[in-house]
Amino acid sequence: MDDFVFYSPTRFVFGRNTETQVGELVKSYGGKKVLIHYGGGSVVRSGLLGRVIKSLDEAAIAHVELGGVKPNPRSDLVYEGIDFARKEGVDFILAVGGGSVIDSAKAIALGVVYDGDFADYYFGKETKNPKAVPASLPIGTVLTIAAAGSEGSPNSVITLEGDLKRACTGEVLRPKFSILNPELTLTLPLYQVACGLTDMFAHVVERYFTPTRDVTITDEMCEAIMRTIVSEGEKAISEPNNYEARANIMWAGTVAHNNVCGVGRVQDWSSHAIEHELSALYDCAHGAGLAVVMPAWMEYVMNTDVARFARFAERVFGVKDADEVTTAKAGIKAYRTWLRKIGMPLSFSELGAKAEDIPFLVKKLNLSGNTLGSFRPLKDEDVAEIYKLACIEH
Amino acid sequence: MDDFVFYSPTRFVFGRNTETQVGELVKSYGGKKVLIHYGGGSVVRSGLLGRVIKSLDEAAIAHVELGGVKPNPRSDLVYEGIDFARKEGVDFILAVGGGSVIDSAKAIALGVVYDGDFADYYFGKETKNPKAVPASLPIGTVLTIAAAGSEGSPNSVITLEGDLKRACTGEVLRPKFSILNPELTLTLPLYQVACGLTDMFAHVVERYFTPTRDVTITDEMCEAIMRTIVSEGEKAISEPNNYEARANIMWAGTVAHNNVCGVGRVQDWSSHAIEHELSALYDCAHGAGLAVVMPAWMEYVMNTDVARFARFAERVFGVKDADEVTTAKAGIKAYRTWLRKIGMPLSFSELGAKAEDIPFLVKKLNLSGNTLGSFRPLKDEDVAEIYKLACIEH
Repeated sequence: MDDFVFYSPTRFVFGRNTETQVGELVKSYGGKKVLIHYGGGSVVRSGLLGRVIKSLDEAAIAHVELGGVKPNPRSDLVYEGIDFARKEGVDFILAVGGGSVIDSAKAIALGVVYDGDFADYYFGKETKNPKAVPASLPIGTVLTIAAAGSEGSPNSVITLEGDLKRACTGEVLRPKFSILNPELTLTLPLYQVACGLTDMFAHVVERYFTPTRDVTITDEMCEAIMRTIVSEGEKAISEPNNYEARANIMWAGTVAHNNVCGVGRVQDWSSHAIEHELSALYDCAHGAGLAVVMPAWMEYVMNTDVARFARFAERVFGVKDADEVTTAKAGIKAYRTWLRKIGMPLSFSELGAKAEDIPFLVKKLNLSGNTLGSFRPLKDEDVAEIYKLACIEH
Repeated sequence: MDDFVFYSPTRFVFGRNTETQVGELVKSYGGKKVLIHYGGGSVVRSGLLGRVIKSLDEAAIAHVELGGVKPNPRSDLVYEGIDFARKEGVDFILAVGGGSVIDSAKAIALGVVYDGDFADYYFGKETKNPKAVPASLPIGTVLTIAAAGSEGSPNSVITLEGDLKRACTGEVLRPKFSILNPELTLTLPLYQVACGLTDMFAHVVERYFTPTRDVTITDEMCEAIMRTIVSEGEKAISEPNNYEARANIMWAGTVAHNNVCGVGRVQDWSSHAIEHELSALYDCAHGAGLAVVMPAWMEYVMNTDVARFARFAERVFGVKDADEVTTAKAGIKAYRTWLRKIGMPLSFSELGAKAEDIPFLVKKLNLSGNTLGSFRPLKDEDVAEIYKLACIEH
């Protein structure tokens, strides 16, 4: 078991109507003027933005708004948000939305207090020792989709100039509070729900397949969360009004990424990096890209540790075959079957991606001679092979 | 799934030699003069206290010491600590020890900043709406035994005048940081290790048997942690030098009680209350008392929800019999077998408790006509029956 620090200081306020507490929560963390950051019109139409504003007004918290965050959030709106927040003298950033909105809010929060270009802190796989963000405005969230886990994580992913999808990290970026009301997710399009399920499942997979494996508690926690996502996720798709299923996956999405299931060992994260090139180039949903990439990654690296994949098959999907190899393969197949069942694409073509772009995708990933991931460190040619496997129709 | 707030802001610093970071950690939380609180001489003899002092000195943090905390910590030392800390102008309480030391440190931390008697915040089952502690000095811990979970919890248990073992709670009592070095636990007497295992397992059981059961994520997390405690706990007892086993149970003890496996539903906690009367009267180890009480509680309440106990049997101990009732019974038997295997007592007589004291124990629990617990609310006569079942030899 490797040494680690576990620190998850976010206050998670979970349940029905919890958005009505947002004003008091901002006040308790010292916020006096809030930038409310959000995406498209659904937050306005549903009345959620109105309820948030009402709560802030009741707590006598001043506020300004900046909407327009798109999936795979871009740096141009971040720059606009930084200028706007500075001009308005904002001291607290409130994200009302999903992972894209929260990530954009984090970028603004760090940019407001930083003299240079906020993008200085966003790095690719080429950066060996990324610099953690040292300071930011405090951030709060009202989550509207169970997916990215950004509501409890220290990370933010932004697509910079040149379609470069890059990440940054820093403990200061963990939200002070996150409001999780499963009712807010009941009206989401089911495709978005499924993308969210795929993303949170992938967050656990990245922590489960690692070269340091003798951590019983972490394995057990990973498997517990993956089984929950599989069973409750299916239920959320087949019974869209099932509050219990929505509540289970909402909390699963948070614990899948606040690192409680990732302590004590090295993690992988290569599938995320390989996927980011797809959603940056084709503007597909990150979850959909992961549904295409991650099973392909599994097929490619399975032989590195067949026993591990057999355990995944048995404990997560309950499948067991004659021997370890066939069990391991059956597990990957069961994973794809689940992805298909919840409505995810499984190949490049379904995603709008093109096999002829593979050399460009690999170049854009820019490993610069370094390797990617830890379970099986990948070189450029390995990544190309994984993209090729992702082209196969299922 | 019930509404909940999950808030676990403690910074957990886990791994070898992490006690050398204590000075910098105290400094980062603003401490300038520390009261080091500890128990008996083992912390002195092992050199741990010296390493802690060295680290504080290197960070230029002033310090005074107060040792002498005993298992089932008593209020007299708390009063002494409060006076001492006030006189010395202490602004940070550092617990170096296990649950008893940490609980005593929490009591001192709240008492220093409170005008009245610290015991005002400690309440028994007779108090329906206990008042949460509003303020305390900041607390840090260097944990020396995997057991109570107090290193990440908002609770403290103190034995007050008249052998009244009572608890208090308050978010301010969550340690700012907790240093968890599994190496520090390698030299513990195995009986203490086993008491710790029994206690942490019980913390999950209290969250697992509840009247609101439809929370897949919470059930899965509970079972994951219980299986880890069973398998890694056995290993820690049979291979005392196994660092991995010690590391697994040390972290399991923390997540068993920081409530990550307890969200979204009512909890029970009756076995803890029933046990506290035993350790308060006979001064036995809390874990040993739980080993005697909890299986007896299970036998008494099993019929309230046999399916639940059958699930516990199958998922935690991997036993399954012809039908639900026999499976449920086999699960309780497997639990006792495990307790015996790690070296725990199973009956009143092994604990030094006496059947003729049962009426006095029930009176001391002082339900005052109220009920105890939630899975099956217990009256005085139910508690007496559970104590009687705990008298049976196994």
